[in-house]
Amino acid sequence: MRIAVDGMGGDYAPIEIVKGCVDAISFIQGDIDIIGNESLIQAELEKYKYDKNRIQVIHASEVITNEDKPVRAVRSKKDSSIVIGMERVREKKNDVFISAGNTGAIMTAALLILGRIQEIDRPVIASPFLGKEGPTLLVDAGANAECKPRNLVEFGMMGNIYMEKVLCFDNPKVALVNIGEEEGKGTKTIQAAHKIMKQTQRNFVGNIEARDLLQGKADILVCDGFIGNIILKYSEGIVDFAIHLIKEKLKESILAKIGIVFLMGKMKEIIKEVDYSEYGGAPILGVKGAVVKMHGSSKAKAVKNAIIRAIPYVENNVVEIIHDEVNELQKIAEGIIEKDSFLQEMNEEGKKIQ
Amino acid sequence: MRIAVDGMGGDYAPIEIVKGCVDAISFIQGDIDIIGNESLIQAELEKYKYDKNRIQVIHASEVITNEDKPVRAVRSKKDSSIVIGMERVREKKNDVFISAGNTGAIMTAALLILGRIQEIDRPVIASPFLGKEGPTLLVDAGANAECKPRNLVEFGMMGNIYMEKVLCFDNPKVALVNIGEEEGKGTKTIQAAHKIMKQTQRNFVGNIEARDLLQGKADILVCDGFIGNIILKYSEGIVDFAIHLIKEKLKESILAKIGIVFLMGKMKEIIKEVDYSEYGGAPILGVKGAVVKMHGSSKAKAVKNAIIRAIPYVENNVVEIIHDEVNELQKIAEGIIEKDSFLQEMNEEGKKIQ
Repeated sequence: MRIAVDGMGGDYAPIEIVKGCVDAISFIQGDIDIIGNESLIQAELEKYKYDKNRIQVIHASEVITNEDKPVRAVRSKKDSSIVIGMERVREKKNDVFISAGNTGAIMTAALLILGRIQEIDRPVIASPFLGKEGPTLLVDAGANAECKPRNLVEFGMMGNIYMEKVLCFDNPKVALVNIGEEEGKGTKTIQAAHKIMKQTQRNFVGNIEARDLLQGKADILVCDGFIGNIILKYSEGIVDFAIHLIKEKLKESILAKIGIVFLMGKMKEIIKEVDYSEYGGAPILGVKGAVVKMHGSSKAKAVKNAIIRAIPYVENNVVEIIHDEVNELQKIAEGIIEKDSFLQEMNEEGKKIQ
Repeated sequence: MRIAVDGMGGDYAPIEIVKGCVDAISFIQGDIDIIGNESLIQAELEKYKYDKNRIQVIHASEVITNEDKPVRAVRSKKDSSIVIGMERVREKKNDVFISAGNTGAIMTAALLILGRIQEIDRPVIASPFLGKEGPTLLVDAGANAECKPRNLVEFGMMGNIYMEKVLCFDNPKVALVNIGEEEGKGTKTIQAAHKIMKQTQRNFVGNIEARDLLQGKADILVCDGFIGNIILKYSEGIVDFAIHLIKEKLKESILAKIGIVFLMGKMKEIIKEVDYSEYGGAPILGVKGAVVKMHGSSKAKAVKNAIIRAIPYVENNVVEIIHDEVNELQKIAEGIIEKDSFLQEMNEEGKKIQ
């Protein structure tokens, strides 16, 4: 097993990325290739003691920044760490590519260089975050703002496989994010996806309302990338706001003041846990290779966890299983649509269920 | 001025509703009609001292519950407080109707009994909530799961008028909830709405990302009812989750324990403020009459505030101003669409911008 890590992506690259790689190496059996500016990365590596046979540096002369336009950057910066990393996965020189860089560029490179798994209409970013009962997987976390029913159906199937094989959940529950629990709620797209998932999705628990997303009622939350983006970004915003409110409202009370100094520290610790640093980043599912997107503000701990989680992602053949299951899924879905006038009508309206 | 209040709607009806009416009467100049079961409401009224000439009870023999299907309930329960209240506004016996009852039934009754303002395509629920800089108005808070561009444009216009005339904001800023700040982000529907609002909306500040919704960057947040529902319900869920996390994570620390008992009480107080009880409920905008939906769990304070806020809603002619402005808006929008190929294309695709 050879894991490729983008040494140049993220707010704390290369310092924290390199530290995360060194920290991870004793937890895994495979080797690590760090891709990026060789002298910068070597300088970081020299700070640590580690088995030099197990971490290699692959030089990349270019860097794709967060300000770069994804498609243009991937096409023009051929010697960037993201492009090289993705090429190495395609050429099977590496088994997985992990990056905290420009999300759009990673997604674009995965699509252009690795390509979609045949029959998967839209690859997706699946983002694990903390809920009451442990990790919850949000699919789509922001890749596809507008979705067809078939996209949502495929997101559920892929999320389910990742949750079982990588996050080691037995029979994870899959739900559709919706504005009501009853069948028939929501947009036509969601209604159509619901009809198909009810008959195709393992452990489908139906619709879930936004107030229940963090309550552990479902382990995989399926929605379009617009809703996924709103949920993830609003989470950040509301935490900021809560801290602001607590500070504002409690500052008059002496008893509270004592607690506040302490609590604020603890709060920040808790909030950090709510992001996906524990769960090893967000996989890009539906492409012909294993790719993990880490949060841009990932530090060594998140990098280490992403590397450790990448092992079951590769060893348990997530990409191959998705490939096999989507073919199966398409056949069953065709049969369902044939027998359902609402689904046929949507197909004809150009909503392209299939 | 005669204000109609639904005596039977909400979790604490009629007790808290009646108390709220009695509390409000000394703050306003108009009179109040409480609609509902006469003997129940009279029994509550007898608990208080108040000017009996200023609060009347209008008997209603039926009640629409939260379990009732909206359309069926409005059609069959003709003697319910919601139907009677709406009829009284239509007949100008009352100037405004306020209810904490079944949201769908209130919306349906407003549509069927009062009717849409001519040229308004879809009436909307506008929900005020607390942000860093004071109240923020979310339009649509859940009435229309699927929206056309013109609906979003109208939501912005109506929300702006309400915010100015009722919540007394000078020049409130209007933003479109989106997945990025740059123009051209988001779904085609949002892109089209953006193009029109840029040229028609007073004080339009462009797109706003979900992480900024509570930061006071905009005063009116325009989105479809699906997104609005997700935002409002997720807010409830995340507060529950935060309390759970704090309790779980801090229970080992003695210093924190001292603070927690105190903080939990304060936290609940703060959280209550984050709902719209301060801002007098959520108006239904775009119908031919003034209607306010209160939260189902409204207590006397929220009822009192809703009644007080109803005064400027009526006195400042919000309904009439919306009527006048939408005609103006439609004319300008037609001119914009004529000159824009993207907007024309969407019109032809059946997305019905107009």
